[in-house]
Amino acid sequence: MSVVPTPAAAVSAPAPCSPQDVRRVACIGAGVIGGGWAAHFLARGYDVTAWDPAPDAAARLRRLIAAAWPALEQLGLAKGASRDRLTVAAALEEAVADAQFVQESAPEKLDLKRDLLARLDAATPAGTVIASSTSGYPMTDMQTQAADPGRLVVGHPFNPPYLIPLVEVVGGELTAPAAVDWASRFYDAAGKSVITMDREVPGFIANRLQEALWREALHMVANGEATVAEIDASITEGPGLRWAVMGPMLTFALAGGEGGMAHMLDHFGPSLKSPWTRLDAPELDRALYDAVVAGCEDAAGGRSIADLVAERDRGVIDVLRATGRLPGSAEGAAR
Amino acid sequence: MSVVPTPAAAVSAPAPCSPQDVRRVACIGAGVIGGGWAAHFLARGYDVTAWDPAPDAAARLRRLIAAAWPALEQLGLAKGASRDRLTVAAALEEAVADAQFVQESAPEKLDLKRDLLARLDAATPAGTVIASSTSGYPMTDMQTQAADPGRLVVGHPFNPPYLIPLVEVVGGELTAPAAVDWASRFYDAAGKSVITMDREVPGFIANRLQEALWREALHMVANGEATVAEIDASITEGPGLRWAVMGPMLTFALAGGEGGMAHMLDHFGPSLKSPWTRLDAPELDRALYDAVVAGCEDAAGGRSIADLVAERDRGVIDVLRATGRLPGSAEGAAR
Repeated sequence: MSVVPTPAAAVSAPAPCSPQDVRRVACIGAGVIGGGWAAHFLARGYDVTAWDPAPDAAARLRRLIAAAWPALEQLGLAKGASRDRLTVAAALEEAVADAQFVQESAPEKLDLKRDLLARLDAATPAGTVIASSTSGYPMTDMQTQAADPGRLVVGHPFNPPYLIPLVEVVGGELTAPAAVDWASRFYDAAGKSVITMDREVPGFIANRLQEALWREALHMVANGEATVAEIDASITEGPGLRWAVMGPMLTFALAGGEGGMAHMLDHFGPSLKSPWTRLDAPELDRALYDAVVAGCEDAAGGRSIADLVAERDRGVIDVLRATGRLPGSAEGAAR
Repeated sequence: MSVVPTPAAAVSAPAPCSPQDVRRVACIGAGVIGGGWAAHFLARGYDVTAWDPAPDAAARLRRLIAAAWPALEQLGLAKGASRDRLTVAAALEEAVADAQFVQESAPEKLDLKRDLLARLDAATPAGTVIASSTSGYPMTDMQTQAADPGRLVVGHPFNPPYLIPLVEVVGGELTAPAAVDWASRFYDAAGKSVITMDREVPGFIANRLQEALWREALHMVANGEATVAEIDASITEGPGLRWAVMGPMLTFALAGGEGGMAHMLDHFGPSLKSPWTRLDAPELDRALYDAVVAGCEDAAGGRSIADLVAERDRGVIDVLRATGRLPGSAEGAAR
């Protein structure tokens, strides 16, 4: 067996301030995602400097933030938060010159990302962490041209970044572990829900999952098996109502009744061989079985199946009510 | 080219009552799904007769209904709804003897389903529609042994059937179209949200989609790429919050900014070739591109992208609030 040398993480300068003390954020790229980030950071009370090479970028950005602002007011603005704290810079270098954190949200083109991250690295104060919103490129593939790749991390958000809490944080082979840690703590302080990954997986976690669903949906449309409207209704009236409350693993554990995930796998495991999707199933061997069952038990954290059922039910009812989908009241439909 | 003869749909007796006039429902199988159906039908004011061969079935069923009842009370019971209107029958024949609708929710075993549906067909009054909760078997494969296959349909629910509105209705090759129509109208009258499919697709629609996601999740656990807890958090803190409000197609259309789905496909179409999931993508040819864009435009029904963004935002905020996940108020996290 050959020994593959592990690339040494670049030693970056220490971050110029602690994650809690950040006041100035730069948003590079001002499309749907970059603009959504700008709206989020403004609402959380940061000074935001944005830059985007498109000629109409400033107007588009201000429109996007204006559209998001009522939602952000409803969520509750941080003290001192104001749209007036947005500056649109004329040049990339100006945007990041005194940034304490940089969020890059350029188009998904690898060469463009590589080049842009190198330019950002050259123009940003030493030690300031630079995060990319990339939906799928590993940082290892993007950090190749930067002089200090150690401070480059992925901070992958979900649309719209001002409402969906999740950010997936992961470094590349040359990223300093301290930069990953700093970014995770910064996003946490900025009100996001953070998953810090310890390895690079193309598409990270949530995108792998939602892409599988999306590709299956495209196949169904391509084959005339379902319309776009049926696909959307099948989720919003079905599993989507559960997924806002409980993830797919615990949700399926509850399909096992009082026996939980173990019973569910015993019962439905064989249908993994059925052609229920175009995605081949993994072998449900003992190791996978045990990992899934143990993972669900850990996630339950002592809550019984009955506790989880009650919790899910309360959550789904709250979601049904909140989204105006409660079925008829006492004068219900049966009579 | 050979001509394949189309099997004639069996001519079933007309249903003994209109979908709106049903008062007596039989639930065959009283596990998580069958019991959930029983709870739903009781809450909607029906008389329910249940049967299950397990020795402890009656006790288990009553426990399940008792656990669901507080949720159903919160949703609002139909006039006259009562748990006292449940009868647990000692024999299958007794359970369906005067049923006006039969919901079969037996384990997912094809031979068992075939045999059971034939027995139910023999014991149920002529013309009464019999629906199977099967998660994935096409009715064509299950109706082979019944004397009157014309009244057998799939009515596929989601767990728990007393809370998740969706039911997917589809017939087999020998099912009378009138039975499919009757079942769809009955479920609608019973407070469900119905998708009536015009062709058999293994796994129907929502299961194909959620199974793709589930299989990808199993692969990730098997490969140590994500833990069960990370998978669940990546959905509940991320895409799951959107899917309770807006399906995957329209959700992705909004990732295209003011250009909608067409811009989204232009922008992210190339990443369909990326290894973001183990599911191969379909060719994004002109026909698929046009179908997806047109489908989203139909679904939008005249609402602009800005309208849809505002609608999604209101919905997600409602869901965040309803599930207790609003970030800090005016004393927010940034300062």
